[in-house]
Amino acid sequence: MSVSPSPRVTPVILSGGAGTRLWPLSRAASPKQMLDLTGGGSMLALTAARVADAGLFAAPILVAGADQAEAIAAQVPGLACLILEPAPRNTAPAIALAALAAGRDDLLLVLPSDHLVRDAAGFGAAVRRALPFAQDGWIVTFGMKAERAETGYGYIERGAALGEGVFAAARFIEKPGPEAAAAFVAGGVHDWNGGIFLMLAATMIDALGRHAPDILKAARAAMAGARRDGKRVHPDAAAFAASPAQSIDYAVMEKAERVAVVPAAIGWSDIGSFAALHLVSDRDGDGNVVAGPALAIDASGCLIRSDGPMVAAIGVADLVIVATRDAVLVVPRAESQRVREAVEALKAKKREDLL
Amino acid sequence: MSVSPSPRVTPVILSGGAGTRLWPLSRAASPKQMLDLTGGGSMLALTAARVADAGLFAAPILVAGADQAEAIAAQVPGLACLILEPAPRNTAPAIALAALAAGRDDLLLVLPSDHLVRDAAGFGAAVRRALPFAQDGWIVTFGMKAERAETGYGYIERGAALGEGVFAAARFIEKPGPEAAAAFVAGGVHDWNGGIFLMLAATMIDALGRHAPDILKAARAAMAGARRDGKRVHPDAAAFAASPAQSIDYAVMEKAERVAVVPAAIGWSDIGSFAALHLVSDRDGDGNVVAGPALAIDASGCLIRSDGPMVAAIGVADLVIVATRDAVLVVPRAESQRVREAVEALKAKKREDLL
Repeated sequence: MSVSPSPRVTPVILSGGAGTRLWPLSRAASPKQMLDLTGGGSMLALTAARVADAGLFAAPILVAGADQAEAIAAQVPGLACLILEPAPRNTAPAIALAALAAGRDDLLLVLPSDHLVRDAAGFGAAVRRALPFAQDGWIVTFGMKAERAETGYGYIERGAALGEGVFAAARFIEKPGPEAAAAFVAGGVHDWNGGIFLMLAATMIDALGRHAPDILKAARAAMAGARRDGKRVHPDAAAFAASPAQSIDYAVMEKAERVAVVPAAIGWSDIGSFAALHLVSDRDGDGNVVAGPALAIDASGCLIRSDGPMVAAIGVADLVIVATRDAVLVVPRAESQRVREAVEALKAKKREDLL
Repeated sequence: MSVSPSPRVTPVILSGGAGTRLWPLSRAASPKQMLDLTGGGSMLALTAARVADAGLFAAPILVAGADQAEAIAAQVPGLACLILEPAPRNTAPAIALAALAAGRDDLLLVLPSDHLVRDAAGFGAAVRRALPFAQDGWIVTFGMKAERAETGYGYIERGAALGEGVFAAARFIEKPGPEAAAAFVAGGVHDWNGGIFLMLAATMIDALGRHAPDILKAARAAMAGARRDGKRVHPDAAAFAASPAQSIDYAVMEKAERVAVVPAAIGWSDIGSFAALHLVSDRDGDGNVVAGPALAIDASGCLIRSDGPMVAAIGVADLVIVATRDAVLVVPRAESQRVREAVEALKAKKREDLL
């Protein structure tokens, strides 16, 4: 594909995650992107729908774990190709596979499969603003409006303006402490790093070659030895296993020179905890988010969700109560990231059947 | 049976209850007496074991709902007879049926099927102390040591001493207010009414005839028309339906003249709420009672019980968390009686399948 006045963008949807931060909802067999967390479909289906505008987007490339092939095929019709990772190696190798599968001149929009963007029109506008810079060889990141002093996210510091609403990225900061995070929010030149990037395939391949040559080499070998089955691509397992497991932030973004940032207040959330899910969900008059068969009696500020059993919550405040067929979580909303302690305890008890 | 120097006592175990105070554990199909709440067996099985000493007790009479026949037969072997109530009519009609099934000279020990008595030896000693008074025509109640100002129980006020550890019952007080309850505990002459009574069958029949003739008449007709099937007795449904539904306290105890009370500090609890269950159960170092598959992580003062799903409770205090296959309850321990609000809400939603 040659660069043209109105090029189309190929979405690269990364669906390799198998997080446990929303246990017991999220499991190895049903990772977060497969869950309907906000209504209207799975996070993956909503992500695919967000890049379905044929005026701007071409058919997407999806990179996912091999065990997720069938579930994904059902959720995302019309894929350009489905690259099935033989093993999870973090985001940089996944993006390398996609960049090699695309044409060098293709514009790629890399985006996680399990994030929420409430303002789809704003999202499209931000991508359009980024387009000329991506065509010019920049890696363009999207800076999500830092709405609070979140210590669980990475931040991007804006540098010099490159154009209307486009800045050079001065610095990437990984998960700051609470004071630094508060200063970032107050200062107004830092955005959250939402893990969404636009660039030419060639730009990414060249950046990988310069900053992460082992990853690029392994990805090339894996794609050279790939088995193809219709739209499904099975990279060579042994070759891919040789790749370092690194995030794209670490492998490329923090090191590359021509990185831009387009600030985008588009209602983004990674829904990285039940507290975050509570924050982005519709709440009743008592501040409860209730989903599934549940009774909230004199309850306030709670997230109550059931995928099966009837949950009766009486006289409680600010709790997360999540029930599935085989597991129940109860934790104060403000401590919902502590779910990982339950996951660790279950691992220690060899209860992988519950993970 | 004639009155002899060492008469045996026929236990009359009342198993008609279908309480919902321990929902979602207790259900119509598995009432509280069928649950293993304290370990070692169902409340009914523990009750039967408590009156298994052949030196003191004869084979028991059990009065239960007709739908419970099979479950009870499995739990209590060696019954003298199993009287299956065609419909629940409260305790007085149930006791009337049992008294009519027994011989007039039989000593009957009426006891609920779903109460806890931790001191079995003390229980036997109290029964022995009551025996001569029962043989002499008294209805002897057992006064459970009032350990706290409980407003959910009835109280018995001791009157004149009749003998060593035996008093005339001066007064029955149904569920006092908190101030009265506190005064009772402080005063030391009031005991909890545990619903356990010893008397001759003839004494009970005569008292019913005097104070509740309609109940006695209906019970006589129901037993006259009863269908017998081995040890199972099916009283006539239409005749039994004519009986007023009254408690034995209301129908007889509060009105009869020769009522005695034997104070008995025997570790009694009716386990009428999850708070009561927490109180009588073994607690870990953090004050938690944990039963079934559960993780208590930085939790304290909680009752966590699962009959199926893995429960993970993290960073919570003084909660009741009860999970079954199809329902989950979360309520502060001090408000655990509010479970009835969930039961009422489920009734309103026509979710009898969960009750």
